Amino acid sequence: MRRHELGCDDHALLAELSADCEVGHLALATPDGPRAVALDFALVDDAIWFHGALAGEKFEALAAGARVGFTMARPYSFIPSTWSAPEHACPATHFFKSVEVRGTCAPVSSADEKAVGLQALMEKYQPEGGFRPLSADLPMYRGALKGVGVFRLEITSWTGKLKFGANEPAKLRHIWVTKLRERGQPLDLLTAVEIEKTLDEDQAP
Amino acid sequence: MRRHELGCDDHALLAELSADCEVGHLALATPDGPRAVALDFALVDDAIWFHGALAGEKFEALAAGARVGFTMARPYSFIPSTWSAPEHACPATHFFKSVEVRGTCAPVSSADEKAVGLQALMEKYQPEGGFRPLSADLPMYRGALKGVGVFRLEITSWTGKLKFGANEPAKLRHIWVTKLRERGQPLDLLTAVEIEKTLDEDQAP
Repeated sequence: MRRHELGCDDHALLAELSADCEVGHLALATPDGPRAVALDFALVDDAIWFHGALAGEKFEALAAGARVGFTMARPYSFIPSTWSAPEHACPATHFFKSVEVRGTCAPVSSADEKAVGLQALMEKYQPEGGFRPLSADLPMYRGALKGVGVFRLEITSWTGKLKFGANEPAKLRHIWVTKLRERGQPLDLLTAVEIEKTLDEDQAP
Repeated sequence: MRRHELGCDDHALLAELSADCEVGHLALATPDGPRAVALDFALVDDAIWFHGALAGEKFEALAAGARVGFTMARPYSFIPSTWSAPEHACPATHFFKSVEVRGTCAPVSSADEKAVGLQALMEKYQPEGGFRPLSADLPMYRGALKGVGVFRLEITSWTGKLKFGANEPAKLRHIWVTKLRERGQPLDLLTAVEIEKTLDEDQAP
């Protein structure tokens, strides 16, 4: 249950998690306290877009523009304590990548802007296409664009984290890589690659 | 991009998502605005437990007890628009189960309580065991229990959502079930079962 995390401000991490995380979590303040709301989302020009109803608590909270948080988290492999300790629970750990955003969020008002956000969502979730691109100029989309709420979150700051045991002894990280490859689940193989990056970085001048 | 969700207050959903969601998201208020924090968590006696540092912004925000939100979300299959429309993007939809909690959260102070929370986390993430159960009575855990922050979130209310197209025409839901079984990914098969439950419920007296 140790926590060793490396901060990361590489813009590539923001792009990577925006693509890889199916769902993000919006934190917003309401009269009844903070809420975390799970959302499909897409990144466009370093802003986060999502859609939702034009009514309800979320809309009310965002209607006039609001300070919000937004987190994208991608869990990697859980490392059981038994891989490095016969009896002690504490070496158990869970690797991840995450990006935590602070920003401001408001609904967009024009049909053109709504189409930008919805098109980005479609490109993320249905990359194979097969639909006419969202556009305010197409009569087939006019009603839908009018009825849907589309929200744009302007990022004011963000912090990334990579937790892959970078501060742990190299010997332990080599054990994890071996055990992960033995267990061999798809996520284990990805996790092993990330741990190996931390070992490579140890060697960097 | 339609939204049809069914509220669900069945306690089994809270237990199911607590077990199935690897990561939950805590919403908390800070002087710099709301934050969403991704966390490993476990449910014990209808309270949510997690661990973290005994310093930093999260600890400060929770130190005196705080109103918080907490969300567990499990995405199911994304349904491409092409399964029911040749050109129109709008039939695209994304199914999910979620539980959104409101409550209050504070660090626990005694080593005994910390051990309860950490043991629950270990049982969730390392169900195969292989470690001595966390206990304040074991000298091997005394230092670790002193140094770690353990937090208990008391649930004051929660709402569940099941989005599997329950309000869509039965004919469309049958198409989805067929297409999901054809695509045949593990998540697709689970999603098909959930859609079939909505069809069964249509038939219920």
